[in-house]
Amino acid sequence: MSGNEARWIWYPGDLELYHAMKQNFSRVERGFSWPAFWKSEGFRNRVVFRREYQLKAETSFTVLTAPDASAFVRMNGGKYPVGTKIVCGPGAVSVSVHIGRISGVPAVYIQGDVICSDDGWLAEDYCQPAVPAASNRYFTEPDRQVDVWPMRETVYEPVSVETVNGGTLYTFETELTASLEVMPLQAGLEPPLVYLGESRAEALDTAQCYYFCRPDALTHRCPRQALRYAFLPGVAPESARVRAIHQFVDIPVRAAFQCDDEELNRIFEVAVHTFSLCCDVFFLDGIKRDKWIWGGDAYQSLFVNRYLTGDREIEQRTLTALRGNDPVTTHVNTIVDYSLLWILSLQEHFDTYGDREYLDRMWPKAESLMALLLGQRNEDGFLIGREKDWVFVDWADFDRDGPLCAEQMFLAAALGVMARFAPEGKKEAYQAEQTELLEKIERCFWDEEQRAYVDSCTSGKRHVTRHANILAIVFGLVSPERQRVLAESVLFNSAVPAITTPYFRFFELDALCRLGYLREVLEEIKAYWGGMLHMGAVTFWEEFDPGLPLEQQYAMYGDPFGKSLCHAWAASPIYLLARYYVGLRPDTQAPGGYECHPAEGFFRELDCTLPVGGRTVRIRIRDGKNAEISEE
Amino acid sequence: MSGNEARWIWYPGDLELYHAMKQNFSRVERGFSWPAFWKSEGFRNRVVFRREYQLKAETSFTVLTAPDASAFVRMNGGKYPVGTKIVCGPGAVSVSVHIGRISGVPAVYIQGDVICSDDGWLAEDYCQPAVPAASNRYFTEPDRQVDVWPMRETVYEPVSVETVNGGTLYTFETELTASLEVMPLQAGLEPPLVYLGESRAEALDTAQCYYFCRPDALTHRCPRQALRYAFLPGVAPESARVRAIHQFVDIPVRAAFQCDDEELNRIFEVAVHTFSLCCDVFFLDGIKRDKWIWGGDAYQSLFVNRYLTGDREIEQRTLTALRGNDPVTTHVNTIVDYSLLWILSLQEHFDTYGDREYLDRMWPKAESLMALLLGQRNEDGFLIGREKDWVFVDWADFDRDGPLCAEQMFLAAALGVMARFAPEGKKEAYQAEQTELLEKIERCFWDEEQRAYVDSCTSGKRHVTRHANILAIVFGLVSPERQRVLAESVLFNSAVPAITTPYFRFFELDALCRLGYLREVLEEIKAYWGGMLHMGAVTFWEEFDPGLPLEQQYAMYGDPFGKSLCHAWAASPIYLLARYYVGLRPDTQAPGGYECHPAEGFFRELDCTLPVGGRTVRIRIRDGKNAEISEE
Repeated sequence: MSGNEARWIWYPGDLELYHAMKQNFSRVERGFSWPAFWKSEGFRNRVVFRREYQLKAETSFTVLTAPDASAFVRMNGGKYPVGTKIVCGPGAVSVSVHIGRISGVPAVYIQGDVICSDDGWLAEDYCQPAVPAASNRYFTEPDRQVDVWPMRETVYEPVSVETVNGGTLYTFETELTASLEVMPLQAGLEPPLVYLGESRAEALDTAQCYYFCRPDALTHRCPRQALRYAFLPGVAPESARVRAIHQFVDIPVRAAFQCDDEELNRIFEVAVHTFSLCCDVFFLDGIKRDKWIWGGDAYQSLFVNRYLTGDREIEQRTLTALRGNDPVTTHVNTIVDYSLLWILSLQEHFDTYGDREYLDRMWPKAESLMALLLGQRNEDGFLIGREKDWVFVDWADFDRDGPLCAEQMFLAAALGVMARFAPEGKKEAYQAEQTELLEKIERCFWDEEQRAYVDSCTSGKRHVTRHANILAIVFGLVSPERQRVLAESVLFNSAVPAITTPYFRFFELDALCRLGYLREVLEEIKAYWGGMLHMGAVTFWEEFDPGLPLEQQYAMYGDPFGKSLCHAWAASPIYLLARYYVGLRPDTQAPGGYECHPAEGFFRELDCTLPVGGRTVRIRIRDGKNAEISEE
Repeated sequence: MSGNEARWIWYPGDLELYHAMKQNFSRVERGFSWPAFWKSEGFRNRVVFRREYQLKAETSFTVLTAPDASAFVRMNGGKYPVGTKIVCGPGAVSVSVHIGRISGVPAVYIQGDVICSDDGWLAEDYCQPAVPAASNRYFTEPDRQVDVWPMRETVYEPVSVETVNGGTLYTFETELTASLEVMPLQAGLEPPLVYLGESRAEALDTAQCYYFCRPDALTHRCPRQALRYAFLPGVAPESARVRAIHQFVDIPVRAAFQCDDEELNRIFEVAVHTFSLCCDVFFLDGIKRDKWIWGGDAYQSLFVNRYLTGDREIEQRTLTALRGNDPVTTHVNTIVDYSLLWILSLQEHFDTYGDREYLDRMWPKAESLMALLLGQRNEDGFLIGREKDWVFVDWADFDRDGPLCAEQMFLAAALGVMARFAPEGKKEAYQAEQTELLEKIERCFWDEEQRAYVDSCTSGKRHVTRHANILAIVFGLVSPERQRVLAESVLFNSAVPAITTPYFRFFELDALCRLGYLREVLEEIKAYWGGMLHMGAVTFWEEFDPGLPLEQQYAMYGDPFGKSLCHAWAASPIYLLARYYVGLRPDTQAPGGYECHPAEGFFRELDCTLPVGGRTVRIRIRDGKNAEISEE
């Protein structure tokens, strides 16, 4: 090991919790900041890093910290300031770095030829047993503090500059997460007011536009924001030079998709751009709004990400941040079902990457979270919300009297995860809980007449929504026969209200694909996502009603520009195409392995590259013949 | 209510936890920072403040936050930025301020004639039910953020300036917590290196002196430090003007003590100065070292403080900071007995001030802390430490085999507090636990032959130290007869090793006073504290061995200047004199009331003013006659 491998180290989870707060507090809307409305805290302020060395020769090392940290180095009983060279050895040398920091993560960087902050340091938090210190590939430079995530930059020039409404509108080729630079070309120009829009309509509507700001007087830059259009009222095109400095976390896309259907190719391409924009330090729901880390959105992002970047780190950062520390007192984003999806996320992540170390590290957190969940069941054994909990499931007209059936389906699925991964001796209890719960669901929520699970077992209304029935299919909680029954009596039953959110539409399309309705799903992909393309979408939207004209597409949540036009969950065609049509999936029986069985009759020509379980696979179909599958 | 009563508000406990971290991370020693070695965290990063108004007329208000906060105001469904005037009313107005902040406490200040941040706001943390927002008298100015505690300043000129060892030594009349100002009188003088000492010897020993620093080039000031002597090597007296800007939290001393014994008067006076210096934002152990908030030291400070400042706020700040948040996972300062002393502190505080609101607020934390303690008893029902716990009791040569008797005495006393204050229905269980524990202590630790409690019931060594026996007396855990037995067989038994720390000496002197040995204790006060005065002490020391010459008094913990020369626990004569000799004490049966029965035969002349339970009492004895007691 050499000093060249040194990097910043911190207590595991702290960096994620700190940056998650920064992310969740970064939403800005019409001049005000809107911090996410859930319990947000948890990075440690006082930690110690320890390591034992057996030195063959004298050596020296220097410990660096943030300037506002309170810290010292202990070496064999001596105490030393940080920032000074410490000489030690040969022989047994015990080094510990003690650090307290309030404003940010207490991280340290140790420079030295032999003693340096590489693999092998233990971290302690004065509460739990020592654990291996954490680090990552983004913070390897001694002069780059861990407080600011390093971003790569690409400069975009506007593709059009027009004079409109007494100002200038700058249009970029696509949506970006960019710092707009407004370089004055006339002396004495005060930094102008800038309106940034995801749509042209939004940028030009200075009364209702989400974002406005003035460039910094020194750097001429606005804060990083989602934008495609920039409108500068009262500014003539010749008074300023405007560029967008697109800033992004470097997570390479490893997927490519070309088939004989140009519309599908374009859908895949736009989904890739959409999802890439939402892959920031964490999986975001959308880049304009909410810019928050939601457990439900993150769960769905796992399905897309595995086929797009295959980057396990963003998944681990997101899951670590969502879960926070023990003892756990509140649910993920306050939402009970998002806690359950967090447990399900662990399984999805493990099945993709086979990372046992991460699973083991999270396992105590899964157990304590499940204990919290099991502790809030009612007298009948059904999961219900506590006073401040949010039992969400979906924006839908549920019969919310008593326990909600869909929530029990999530719980049953999560109990399955617990039973699968729990050590011997604990498995059986989770398995028994799941079996008992499934029996109770069957007894209380199954309606034989309607051949469907009803929302409520207490109201007597026997109201059917799609949600519980979809979850029974996607989590495999009922027999294949029952799944086919549900498809007929619920999924293809137009009397059951349609799913209205793309969030739950993901589960529904997944259920349909699982049951083999690939033609129907492909039709839907082309209608829904193709429909957005026909309206000129360059990124996929939070929601889309094909029946509305373009000018009515921007409103949502009662806000004329409330809709996010670049939303992660809208990238699901990547998953659907890769998983069910290209037919590639990780082999959950053999971590690292994969299976690939392209669906027949969908591609005459296909040249597709996808990551899977650490490898990259190329699938080629030529002239409708059997697919050639090769590894890159 | 008017806008003039507005002040900063925050979630209760957050300010204490934040400033406690600042305090506990502020220790500096020979160029390195030494953050306290216990779990340090817990102020909330995301809170909301809410209030409902019924407005008779239109009004307006403006919400202020720290510049790095993420926040907005919600008023009747509308969302507004902070820092702008919001007009509302007449009629029902619902206001909430949503704030997230990472680097410090998310506090808000609301300016307005009607709507302002005065009493009546509720605070929520997305975890627990709403509670009244907190504020205090130190943060009432809108332009004074809560991150820095406001200090008052007094300027001290040196009382002597001497040329020594090629430099200049500045001596101040007493010890201070001061920012040393070094104003250069010659152009081009670089800020010189400054050595600050509690003793002359320390300041002049540039190799071993605890503190050295360079004044800031712009302000010419050093950071605030404990100092009496400042040595500037290589600087001539005429090159700089040196002053000490003493900085202190404004907590007025309300006590005065004059009697016919000049030595006692001087002891009282120096104890007052010592203790005042240690009354910072929190009770500190010492002002040079550790500058940390220790639960054991804080417990003893309660006894002194009630007779000196009568300031309940510093007591509440200290106790709130020590305890942290629920769920509790670690002990106060990692020390099991300090957790028990925290529970005992609640009782001491309540008996002094009768503040039921504070007790009620802390009560759930007492219950959860006691649950943690009761959960770590061994199979015999005795309290033991977990792996990372520290069972301290005292620096003494205990027989630490198995459970330690003194720790069980602390537990029995704390159970008594729980039984006393618990609501009906819960009292009985704590009472039963205490009764059972006392029976077990008697059965396992009482040695009939030695007529003493032994340290260990498992080693078979039957080793006696004073500690458990002293605690049995001061907490009244055994009968008056048994207490007298213990005095004879332990306290006045020179075969039992003497207490070596002033920390436990406090408990011993208290026990002796309780048993009426006032002559003996007064002799000890004059020998020990008078002994320090004879050596020239201007503040009382962490420890004192009357048998050593002055030059050997500064060492402790194996460090030549390791001893703190201004230590809170050394101020106990204030308590002993006030409580047992002046005979003043709060009436625990009648909160706010007091009793005063001066001990006979100790004062020929006395003019003493002391706070007690919110009042100030003057006790005068003239010519040995009966005391006159009056309220001021």
